[in-house]
Amino acid sequence: MQNHKEITSVGNALVKKAVLLREKSRERKKSGFFIMEGKREIQLALKSDYQIDTLFYRPELLGEIELKELTSVSQHPPSLISVSEEVYKKIAYRETTEGIIALVRHKNHTLEGFSIKNENPLILVAEAPEKPGNIGALLRTADAANLDGVIIANPKTDIYNPNIIRSSVGCVFSNQIAMGSTTEIIDFLKQKKIDIYCAALTASINYSTADFTKSAAIVVGTEATGLSTEWLENSSQNIIIPMQGEIDSMNVSVSAGILIFEAKRQRGF
Amino acid sequence: MQNHKEITSVGNALVKKAVLLREKSRERKKSGFFIMEGKREIQLALKSDYQIDTLFYRPELLGEIELKELTSVSQHPPSLISVSEEVYKKIAYRETTEGIIALVRHKNHTLEGFSIKNENPLILVAEAPEKPGNIGALLRTADAANLDGVIIANPKTDIYNPNIIRSSVGCVFSNQIAMGSTTEIIDFLKQKKIDIYCAALTASINYSTADFTKSAAIVVGTEATGLSTEWLENSSQNIIIPMQGEIDSMNVSVSAGILIFEAKRQRGF
Repeated sequence: MQNHKEITSVGNALVKKAVLLREKSRERKKSGFFIMEGKREIQLALKSDYQIDTLFYRPELLGEIELKELTSVSQHPPSLISVSEEVYKKIAYRETTEGIIALVRHKNHTLEGFSIKNENPLILVAEAPEKPGNIGALLRTADAANLDGVIIANPKTDIYNPNIIRSSVGCVFSNQIAMGSTTEIIDFLKQKKIDIYCAALTASINYSTADFTKSAAIVVGTEATGLSTEWLENSSQNIIIPMQGEIDSMNVSVSAGILIFEAKRQRGF
Repeated sequence: MQNHKEITSVGNALVKKAVLLREKSRERKKSGFFIMEGKREIQLALKSDYQIDTLFYRPELLGEIELKELTSVSQHPPSLISVSEEVYKKIAYRETTEGIIALVRHKNHTLEGFSIKNENPLILVAEAPEKPGNIGALLRTADAANLDGVIIANPKTDIYNPNIIRSSVGCVFSNQIAMGSTTEIIDFLKQKKIDIYCAALTASINYSTADFTKSAAIVVGTEATGLSTEWLENSSQNIIIPMQGEIDSMNVSVSAGILIFEAKRQRGF
């Protein structure tokens, strides 16, 4: 096993770096690293070929055997750093703890790297989603539906935000995720001959009458402003969930779930 | 118009009461009042026969004509209290402001008062939901689907929690809501001959093969523990959303949305 180090001072440079990675999107972007917490999430990330650089662990909570098991699938063995409770608390973002935090290298989320394996793929596109809770819920639905992947257009929030990692319960790792501008994504979908179904209020048909059995991308915008004109102008078909209430304002992750599972139903799950 | 009063001191007893109503569920329960904020929400509450006791307003943001319009549908004219910016900030729970906060009387949410108007009602039951964001999203979906109502079993969080009012964007007022124990609700549904469809992992059929065209209650539990045994033992049919992912953990409000709109689809919206 690799050399173990020990950190007991919260003033240590690596501890400071980890805290910055937790707090600052800019720092994550600049360095190409992020931090994450919890055994299950770390296992998921490793399974999805994420590369763990460093593992901070509390030796009183995790033994060497467990650490070995946890990282056994890792191609590049991470540095193991035993930390004191004080140091751990300084880095952690969760209230409960499993005693393990990983410093992980970003994956590439370009459209070029987005692989389409199925003959008739089903993809979710979300334009400019902002709230970590909504993004987490979208990713959980995408995982449960076993979508070919999720594409985020004009991203506003970096997906390695600790609140997204947490609210996605690890689905940020289990899904194939790409990011790009709306223009790039429209070009990509057209080139791959994937029909574009925009959730929109105008020129829309009832979503349940649309045919989702062919290659399809379901595209949702923000609750506040909906999709940009560019999407609507390039839509194969606008779709709408008929609403009959007093207020008619569904949560974006609920709407996306209804659309995705109607497509799944039509495809026989 | 009723007499206007003015409060400029944050030490005023009514201001202190309003703050307590914002912060403490116990205080809301004890007094039978809650506070809410925003013109749209106040209009919705009045439309749903909520009784507003007092309106705190900032005179520089709301004129007398607007106040009159806002409360014109109210059967019991509220006391109008002009407040200073400092007092307003002390009471308010939102960051942005429209300059109006209402002190409102609870409605009765007993099962006895729950009215069923449709021949084949569609009802959502949520057992012990906790997170205000999830409850808000459930209520938004229930409103959009124009359900006959929402019943909360063994409630953990009081529905006049400011975070529920906020995250429901007013749907806490537009929906008919009842609360009771699981036992009471099961008795109620059986007595009304409403079929019970429990979202559950065991003895379940694919939700899309269930028949939701008759009187139906869709019952969802918590993400952590699912539904209690009592529900499962009294279920007409357990249903499941087939999941095929790595993690298979959908948000409860997303799952409920998928089930509710499958029922809507079967009923021809």
